[in-house]
Amino acid sequence: MLEWEQLLASVYSDVAPYIGEGKVANYIPALAKVDPEKFGMAIVTLDGSVHQIGDANESFSIQSVSKVFTLTLALGRVGESLWKRVGREPSGTPFNSIVQLESEHGIPRNPFINAGAIVVADTLLSGHQPKETLGEILSFVRYLADDDGILIDAEVARSEQHTGFRNAALANYMHAFGNIHNPVEKTLGVYYHQCALSMNCVQLAKAGLFLANNGRLANEGHHAISAERARRINALMLTCGHYDASGDFAFRVGLPGKSGVGGGILCIAPRKAAIAVWSPGLNANGNSAAGTRALEILAKRTGWSIFG
Amino acid sequence: MLEWEQLLASVYSDVAPYIGEGKVANYIPALAKVDPEKFGMAIVTLDGSVHQIGDANESFSIQSVSKVFTLTLALGRVGESLWKRVGREPSGTPFNSIVQLESEHGIPRNPFINAGAIVVADTLLSGHQPKETLGEILSFVRYLADDDGILIDAEVARSEQHTGFRNAALANYMHAFGNIHNPVEKTLGVYYHQCALSMNCVQLAKAGLFLANNGRLANEGHHAISAERARRINALMLTCGHYDASGDFAFRVGLPGKSGVGGGILCIAPRKAAIAVWSPGLNANGNSAAGTRALEILAKRTGWSIFG
Amino acid sequence: MLEWEQLLASVYSDVAPYIGEGKVANYIPALAKVDPEKFGMAIVTLDGSVHQIGDANESFSIQSVSKVFTLTLALGRVGESLWKRVGREPSGTPFNSIVQLESEHGIPRNPFINAGAIVVADTLLSGHQPKETLGEILSFVRYLADDDGILIDAEVARSEQHTGFRNAALANYMHAFGNIHNPVEKTLGVYYHQCALSMNCVQLAKAGLFLANNGRLANEGHHAISAERARRINALMLTCGHYDASGDFAFRVGLPGKSGVGGGILCIAPRKAAIAVWSPGLNANGNSAAGTRALEILAKRTGWSIFG
Amino acid sequence: MLEWEQLLASVYSDVAPYIGEGKVANYIPALAKVDPEKFGMAIVTLDGSVHQIGDANESFSIQSVSKVFTLTLALGRVGESLWKRVGREPSGTPFNSIVQLESEHGIPRNPFINAGAIVVADTLLSGHQPKETLGEILSFVRYLADDDGILIDAEVARSEQHTGFRNAALANYMHAFGNIHNPVEKTLGVYYHQCALSMNCVQLAKAGLFLANNGRLANEGHHAISAERARRINALMLTCGHYDASGDFAFRVGLPGKSGVGGGILCIAPRKAAIAVWSPGLNANGNSAAGTRALEILAKRTGWSIFG
Repeated sequence: MLEWEQLLASVYSDVAPYIGEGKVANYIPALAKVDPEKFGMAIVTLDGSVHQIGDANESFSIQSVSKVFTLTLALGRVGESLWKRVGREPSGTPFNSIVQLESEHGIPRNPFINAGAIVVADTLLSGHQPKETLGEILSFVRYLADDDGILIDAEVARSEQHTGFRNAALANYMHAFGNIHNPVEKTLGVYYHQCALSMNCVQLAKAGLFLANNGRLANEGHHAISAERARRINALMLTCGHYDASGDFAFRVGLPGKSGVGGGILCIAPRKAAIAVWSPGLNANGNSAAGTRALEILAKRTGWSIFG
Repeated sequence: MLEWEQLLASVYSDVAPYIGEGKVANYIPALAKVDPEKFGMAIVTLDGSVHQIGDANESFSIQSVSKVFTLTLALGRVGESLWKRVGREPSGTPFNSIVQLESEHGIPRNPFINAGAIVVADTLLSGHQPKETLGEILSFVRYLADDDGILIDAEVARSEQHTGFRNAALANYMHAFGNIHNPVEKTLGVYYHQCALSMNCVQLAKAGLFLANNGRLANEGHHAISAERARRINALMLTCGHYDASGDFAFRVGLPGKSGVGGGILCIAPRKAAIAVWSPGLNANGNSAAGTRALEILAKRTGWSIFG
Repeated sequence: MLEWEQLLASVYSDVAPYIGEGKVANYIPALAKVDPEKFGMAIVTLDGSVHQIGDANESFSIQSVSKVFTLTLALGRVGESLWKRVGREPSGTPFNSIVQLESEHGIPRNPFINAGAIVVADTLLSGHQPKETLGEILSFVRYLADDDGILIDAEVARSEQHTGFRNAALANYMHAFGNIHNPVEKTLGVYYHQCALSMNCVQLAKAGLFLANNGRLANEGHHAISAERARRINALMLTCGHYDASGDFAFRVGLPGKSGVGGGILCIAPRKAAIAVWSPGLNANGNSAAGTRALEILAKRTGWSIFG
Repeated sequence: MLEWEQLLASVYSDVAPYIGEGKVANYIPALAKVDPEKFGMAIVTLDGSVHQIGDANESFSIQSVSKVFTLTLALGRVGESLWKRVGREPSGTPFNSIVQLESEHGIPRNPFINAGAIVVADTLLSGHQPKETLGEILSFVRYLADDDGILIDAEVARSEQHTGFRNAALANYMHAFGNIHNPVEKTLGVYYHQCALSMNCVQLAKAGLFLANNGRLANEGHHAISAERARRINALMLTCGHYDASGDFAFRVGLPGKSGVGGGILCIAPRKAAIAVWSPGLNANGNSAAGTRALEILAKRTGWSIFG
């Protein structure tokens, strides 16, 4: 195990001067008050063994990283028919742009921009109450991470709801095109609560491991999803997981990843490991600045890039 | 060797019913007259051994696949400063869209859309005559493929020039923003001639092998470029290589690839092989229909997907 | 007075073959059930005398024509500072487009597209309850038309509210930019109710007369607004009153006008008369088909075009 | 006549403090070297009498004001069929935007944005050599102004051609959609030379008088065009004559007008007079700053606003 700890220590040491750079998200108080100097990282290898450094046991708001888990759930629920309601292409626009929806008739470009994730939440909600759906999402993430301590931060969810006019615009707009099937408030309720999932790096890496392990839980564990579906979700993370900086992340890191405005990134090294990193300062594209640097260093040092 | 031939035969047999589907590009006579029933495929493994099937020895117009080679050359010439003049993000728009250039001040989104490739050609031209630059491009491709039989089809280049009003619009538009440094006609002259490169599948796969082999020619050959640069070009091919269908190609095939309107696709399986496929019928996104299917089948059968 | 009746009769006779053309708005039942064969027209001259033909005494939903009255009220309330929150330029896009709001930071192009009228409603609401504001709007229109029989159709307002997802998107989106100051539901409540004003052609022409009469009520009546403000509102009606067909209306009719999806148009002949026309069938641009034709004929016959 | 001179003197006196504000166009040397303190104004009434002040006899480059004359010529040549190739709606975008052309398939929004005027020039060119067409344009303007001293400044035309990459982009782009019928260089040659028409305020006002006089030359002169066509051109000038500030010009001045980047504006008071103003400093929208102010003052003082 020593080598993993040395690896993490060397990444940490290289990235240390950059911890604190960028700007902490401040659109809701719960995020704004987070200490910008935090940094945690966890690697979970295919056998389930956990390696960590820094603040890897401290919970943070995973925000958009949750879109990976709800997409997985929704594909399990409705299968490939999901792609009638949401696309699979990079958007070429910021995460909360509404322009594309007008010319493309309310079909969001991919499930990782806000509009797409709202459609995914709407899919999960269908025929249920928000509470049930949120229970299902929470159970799924706990199951994946094998950790019942994972919670949804109700205060964060409430704050998002109070300030989420742009998301309300997206949801109403898609409803006008018939691409939201439930009452807008209910769909947004699910969406805001999923974004308020509170997890630490260890939990997040464990929860994402199935994507590195051909759809299976650690070792020869149960298939959470098929190997093909895992590959496809990884492909979507690579092309769309960092909004309008996805190309740059692929260029620099070379691994599928999904970032959140809380400063977390879940990164998948297929057939190798799942990595979670957290540092609240965001770069100009709204992704963790130090977190992206750490992943770039890690990928270089391990040779894990999927591109050669 | 037998297993490769069996593999190719099985792919060919599965894709056979689909050969001829789609529409052959018809904007210039030289492309329109190509037989839609053609299909060729070649795999070159890291040791340089060649495996092929169908019309893999018949030359076709590689068109936009050439953008991979000119990008490689331009990076060698000007290094990372190239990224001041062209972006690295998927465009979210068709290959010849001009809209993005207006809001982003003449900086094309990536080097694989037409606007981006025209900037790359302009970079290569700098301080030379078109003829010299074309000589350099041709020499580079011949060197990579180890084949002096590769030619530029002057008739195709001439036809493109006569009908290329949209590309002329892109070039003039970027010139207005100061992002074309040479006379528009000269830059477009280089661009049209590079697109008129005539190669067969075997030549194309051989020429692309360095991207699968950490930047090296076959075996332990010379480094055409550094391993890191090869990874980065692969990343760009994955996120941007199929225009506004790049997400779909990543989702279905799971390998970096670059398509051309002549029906060719160069596909890279990092640390495994380079694959070239050719079939002139194009799908709705302007990429080879049967070619994309063949690569999807191949990737599934070999497990070469980079996503797990 | 005979000549006016002859004029109206000749217009009616010329337009008769076209009554019924176009499509009746059907997004809410209350509008969909209107008889497409209806046609009414009223002219009120500066002295307040009324001339009418057809179904000019039958009430219809004035919809977006109401935007003229709320703009007038809002300018009276906040003066020229209104133009910090809404522009004065044609939009070049459909009435309910959201695209422009993204690039122009939540400032709608003009007060006659939906987004602009929602901002105007928000201005009127400021510091009041929707009921008070609606009372004020209703009183103002009754005062202008000198007719207390004018009502708001609550059923229409309710239907609009239930189907108004696109307007809800616009309002939420502008709220995200800080350009809606009241709770979205309240502002939209005012907006939907103002659109549900039910008036007939005679009432509408009388209510609009001040715009033809230098801001004064009939004859030497009270100044509802200053002459300069009346001119300016007329200018806005001309450049922006028919959404993305404003240029065509100016070209064909040559008078300021504001149309509504209920099939009504209020048209101003400065220093001559106010004209209201109603016919429910809409042309491709969403403006009354027969109504526009009637105004074109009327303008030609009277020589009222403001363009020579 | 005294009253006209007094009127002009009072306008001049009020606008004097603002002469020199704004920025002189500097994209070509011939425009950049113009003295920013210049100001001239001429009014020609229906009887042909001329009133002037300031530098009204000094020639300047009329630039886009020429679009009024070429539109008039083209309508005479091809009639209403012109509207198949160019629209009649405000664009909602700057004068040289290319975005709208992509979504609207190469049909420019109106004849007064650059793209539209290039189509108009292409219409005039059809079947002729540029020299003949330019001769025809020049003859027409001389005929309207009754002044053979009007010239085309070849140096200005040449400069425009050397720097006109954006116009070349527009022309090539429209050619790609089949909406330019002549070789791009020839069409642009006509366009650049028409923009290089050199006129003074007196000549310009005289040349525009037919638009104020129901299509007739001064007094009961020949009909240059029909009264209806004159009205329609005035309508287009009002809705589209000042690019993306047309709404503002209508709001402030209330008269049809067409501006040029050389600082000239031709303004029509229907059935009253034609006014030409020139002052080289441009406001943020690219229209003469002092010229617009002068017209605003003039319209207020004369009560010539067409809006009441």
